[in-house]
Amino acid sequence: MENFEFHNPTRIIFGKGILVLVGREARSFGSRCLLVTGKRSVRESGTYDIVRNSLEAEGIDVIDLSGIQSNPILSPVHRGIDMVKEKAIDFVLALGGGSVMDTAKAVAAGSLMEGGDIWDVFEGKRQIEKALPIVCIPTIAASGSEMNGFMVITNEKTGYKLAAGSPHVYPKLSFLAPELTFSVPPDYTAYGGVDAICHLLEPYFNGPDPFTPVQDDMAEGLIRNIMKATEGCLASPSDYNARSTLMWAATLALNGLTRAGVGEHPFPVHLIEHAISAIYGVAHGAGLGALLPGWMRWRARSHGPEKICQFGTRCLNVIDKAETVGCADRSAFVFSQWLSSVGCPSCLADLGITKEGHGKIAENVSKQAAIWGIEDMYSNRVILDVLSFCQLRPQE
Amino acid sequence: MENFEFHNPTRIIFGKGILVLVGREARSFGSRCLLVTGKRSVRESGTYDIVRNSLEAEGIDVIDLSGIQSNPILSPVHRGIDMVKEKAIDFVLALGGGSVMDTAKAVAAGSLMEGGDIWDVFEGKRQIEKALPIVCIPTIAASGSEMNGFMVITNEKTGYKLAAGSPHVYPKLSFLAPELTFSVPPDYTAYGGVDAICHLLEPYFNGPDPFTPVQDDMAEGLIRNIMKATEGCLASPSDYNARSTLMWAATLALNGLTRAGVGEHPFPVHLIEHAISAIYGVAHGAGLGALLPGWMRWRARSHGPEKICQFGTRCLNVIDKAETVGCADRSAFVFSQWLSSVGCPSCLADLGITKEGHGKIAENVSKQAAIWGIEDMYSNRVILDVLSFCQLRPQE
Repeated sequence: MENFEFHNPTRIIFGKGILVLVGREARSFGSRCLLVTGKRSVRESGTYDIVRNSLEAEGIDVIDLSGIQSNPILSPVHRGIDMVKEKAIDFVLALGGGSVMDTAKAVAAGSLMEGGDIWDVFEGKRQIEKALPIVCIPTIAASGSEMNGFMVITNEKTGYKLAAGSPHVYPKLSFLAPELTFSVPPDYTAYGGVDAICHLLEPYFNGPDPFTPVQDDMAEGLIRNIMKATEGCLASPSDYNARSTLMWAATLALNGLTRAGVGEHPFPVHLIEHAISAIYGVAHGAGLGALLPGWMRWRARSHGPEKICQFGTRCLNVIDKAETVGCADRSAFVFSQWLSSVGCPSCLADLGITKEGHGKIAENVSKQAAIWGIEDMYSNRVILDVLSFCQLRPQE
Repeated sequence: MENFEFHNPTRIIFGKGILVLVGREARSFGSRCLLVTGKRSVRESGTYDIVRNSLEAEGIDVIDLSGIQSNPILSPVHRGIDMVKEKAIDFVLALGGGSVMDTAKAVAAGSLMEGGDIWDVFEGKRQIEKALPIVCIPTIAASGSEMNGFMVITNEKTGYKLAAGSPHVYPKLSFLAPELTFSVPPDYTAYGGVDAICHLLEPYFNGPDPFTPVQDDMAEGLIRNIMKATEGCLASPSDYNARSTLMWAATLALNGLTRAGVGEHPFPVHLIEHAISAIYGVAHGAGLGALLPGWMRWRARSHGPEKICQFGTRCLNVIDKAETVGCADRSAFVFSQWLSSVGCPSCLADLGITKEGHGKIAENVSKQAAIWGIEDMYSNRVILDVLSFCQLRPQE
């Protein structure tokens, strides 16, 4: 096990009937709340009213920042920062998916920056030093943003989708209400599951070394649960068992637990997907699905097949335990079949991307890699090589 | 999944060469430290000097509370509370095993109580409202006290060993240095592993309901890792892979993760063991080992065999998947064999306890059950029934 630090201070309230508690529990963060939401669904479902009423019943003034889109962009972050300053907001509450939560985090951090622009943080030019308290109420099981210090924003002017992280943007409190996800449509339910699986696989594939059997077992258990729960949610969208399993497993997938001790691990599949989302506007989970099987086949050749075989034998019932490239390819193939079975793309062609697009994707990834200081590991040539493995669905 | 709250704010620094950081990281808690230690080992090993030097290099005054014994008793807690008040201590640092950490927690909480005695908390007569900051450096992988809000103290006057819990006694910071455990002798290495396994099994055996596949998978993975790592540590005491696995898995075993969502679950095996420790002075893990196989056989009959079979098939390679009492008994038998193989008692007779002692144990447990409000569930008659299953080693 590598040396590590683990510190996840987010408090979780999980279950049925918990949204009436929002006001009472959030009261300690202040009396003026910026309520960040997406386009329509939380208003149409009545969830918005429940949350707003709960806040107002505790004497908390609610100011809206609504209309946040998928693959969230920078301008609403700037608008939110201005609102915080104008209205003397005390805390930021996100009610929505990963895009809404990440926007809320960027607003919470950007509001307390002295000089400069929050985008500087995403470009790696400065660190976050403080942030307003953040409360999250996720409406989809996917990003894990409700219990981590990450956020991803697209700069619509430059066309880059970049991630940033800080201990200061861990939510103070998140309400995980699986019933809110009953209405998530099948495609996004699957994409959410795939996003969570990818959060687990990226640190998992760091190995075969260091020796991390505790982390491996945890990641494998979560992946098996996410796969099964995704299938359960698709079969029966209001199945509380399946929805609660998917929600808690997705939260645990990126709360630092399975990463602690595995050593340095950039998230290369996420980097490449962020380029694809920025250029083609695809849903994040769909982009990850399109990359993962090819990524595994490339990785088996470049870094050894052991960990990919382990994934296949322990999570996909692949029987070959030889730990060869053939076993890794078989694992990638079985996983691509599973992706297709839940309605998720499993190669770039599934997204309508052709080989002609690879150059532009690789260029975008290179810029991100430079910001993260991993341009040596993920050079243009390497990314083009990966993309060639991802272009078509793996064959048996 | 049942509704739950999860909030574990402890910061963990894990790995090799980390003890030189203690002073720098603890500095924010103040300039006067009560350093709680056990009898001799940390002084003989030189660890005490490393920690003390690190603190003093940062200008932190160190006041010693040393000589804490296994199955820690109340009088040193009172002594520590007096020292904190006399010397204006800012924070408490525990360097030792579970007994040292639990003493430090009781001192940290007791020092800030206004009126009354810290023992009132253990007797359920009042709640902890605040505590001094607590820093832990465990020297054995066992109790998980380094990342939870529990503590167990024996009142040597009344002969009761009681547990108490509070969010205020989560350590602010714990240093997990697996190399410190290289010198833990074989018996205590095994007892530590068994303690951690019991922390996982008690909530796990709460079921078969509610539906908690995520928690089950996590608990089973940790148990498999703890069993294998315990064997590894016994075979090769300075094996960093085995020691680091055992240490991190033992910490995760009782940090709230595998308990969240499984519903109410008292720790009955712990209650009974605390009675045995209080009366017979046995090591905690040894007492747990002596109870677990019998407990499983009793539980299979009283609450159904399903979860015990699941444990056997997933953690012990028991092949019978029929989920019958026979399968549960087989699982208990295989587990008792494993306990023997690592040098841990697996029945009361192994501890030298005879049937004549059952009455006194049951009486002690009843008092604890009353404090926890579970006397209906664990009546004298029930406990005597459990003990009769635990008296002799299960047979194949």
